[in-house]
Amino acid sequence: MRTADELRDAVEAYLGTLRFAPELGRLEEPLRYALESGGKRIRPVLCLAVAEAARGDVPHALPAAVALELVHTFSLVHDDLPALDDDAERRGRPSSHVAFGEGVALLAGDALLAEAFRLALSYDDPDIARELAGATLGMIGGQYRDITGDDGDLAEVEQLKTGRLFSAAVGLGLQTAGVPTAGQPPWRAFGDELGILFQAVDDILDGDGFAARVGVDGARRLVDDASDQARERLVDLPGETSVLRALVDGLAARTA
Amino acid sequence: MRTADELRDAVEAYLGTLRFAPELGRLEEPLRYALESGGKRIRPVLCLAVAEAARGDVPHALPAAVALELVHTFSLVHDDLPALDDDAERRGRPSSHVAFGEGVALLAGDALLAEAFRLALSYDDPDIARELAGATLGMIGGQYRDITGDDGDLAEVEQLKTGRLFSAAVGLGLQTAGVPTAGQPPWRAFGDELGILFQAVDDILDGDGFAARVGVDGARRLVDDASDQARERLVDLPGETSVLRALVDGLAARTA
Repeated sequence: MRTADELRDAVEAYLGTLRFAPELGRLEEPLRYALESGGKRIRPVLCLAVAEAARGDVPHALPAAVALELVHTFSLVHDDLPALDDDAERRGRPSSHVAFGEGVALLAGDALLAEAFRLALSYDDPDIARELAGATLGMIGGQYRDITGDDGDLAEVEQLKTGRLFSAAVGLGLQTAGVPTAGQPPWRAFGDELGILFQAVDDILDGDGFAARVGVDGARRLVDDASDQARERLVDLPGETSVLRALVDGLAARTA
Repeated sequence: MRTADELRDAVEAYLGTLRFAPELGRLEEPLRYALESGGKRIRPVLCLAVAEAARGDVPHALPAAVALELVHTFSLVHDDLPALDDDAERRGRPSSHVAFGEGVALLAGDALLAEAFRLALSYDDPDIARELAGATLGMIGGQYRDITGDDGDLAEVEQLKTGRLFSAAVGLGLQTAGVPTAGQPPWRAFGDELGILFQAVDDILDGDGFAARVGVDGARRLVDDASDQARERLVDLPGETSVLRALVDGLAARTA
């Protein structure tokens, strides 16, 4: 079993050697800039950890895991644009449109999404790309409800905006490991709890979302509940889940 | 054999009944608005005409044809944004960002691209979605070269921006008809000529591109050459190509 840090290193190494479509030409630079923003790679690491826990092969799961990171990165590049969140910085660096201009950032986001599908389609099994398409559409639906203020049911909006990619991380890990559909629900339920946990911690750190709606103490209770639920789900899963357990602990204790 | 108009009606009918991912919620409205802009549907019609000429089945080819139209429509919605062409109108109606706001138009474009892949992935054969991913990336690469002024080789830029979706129209028609890879090159060569023809006429009508570079007379000669080449290619193709011939004639004579 590789540790979470070792899985993260595998993701970084794969990203470093990833070749984009040659027709993109010099658009490659903004793509790499956005991907090298030093994120935690939590979604691809979760995907690989699930694949390994389900007795899958990490190298075989890597393209799917990285495709998911490309979708996540596409959403950040577009979210940062003036038309949406208008964020000039991302993780201490100029965001893509500040570094390259709005038009290039727009195209770079589009290209990241298309590259994600190209990577997902490197598998013989189209279910990998299908999982990615469904999760991407759910995420976009959540963003739409967010910007239009249709967020009365905050849990539902966050389940779409964040939860769908977490769920896909688990789903892609299972599919690359060859876990049949019938055996997937308990794993996916774990992914759902992890998504709630991640988002509630995010909201506490950013002072928005759940933290703004129910207060920091309320959001902290949500974190504790989701962590407990996630750990309980792990107990019932077939496979060696110590790395997944470490991911839960790490996400619950996260301070940045 | 159905005529080009009958194939266009089939595309419109399919678009009318197309169901989007339910998680998109009310984002469906801007998606339908963008798709109902009354375009000529030349790419999906070409796809269906090729499928039928290659003895394929039009209903079987429809999802692939419409997936291509979704990619084309995504590119129009994003191109019209202030960050790129800043066009307030599209075919006599307010463009998407004028009608719905920039943030919603950005997400609507993203959703159209993701829906295109979802539709392409309704086939068992992942080659359909692979063809779409490659063409989309080529098109984006062409747009990037266009906005950054890296258009010294205008023919190459237009081959990417326009030619790749025309080539994919032919490719998707062939693939849904089950034409093996070895038999595809002459059909694809026809598609390349048709892409040049379409773009040169577009440039004459808009007074840019080739028309700005080599003058209207030069662009008109390009139209004539490409039409002749396309018709010559048709002669050698196996199959009943009268509808494809009518498409060439219609594109060459186009005035709007």
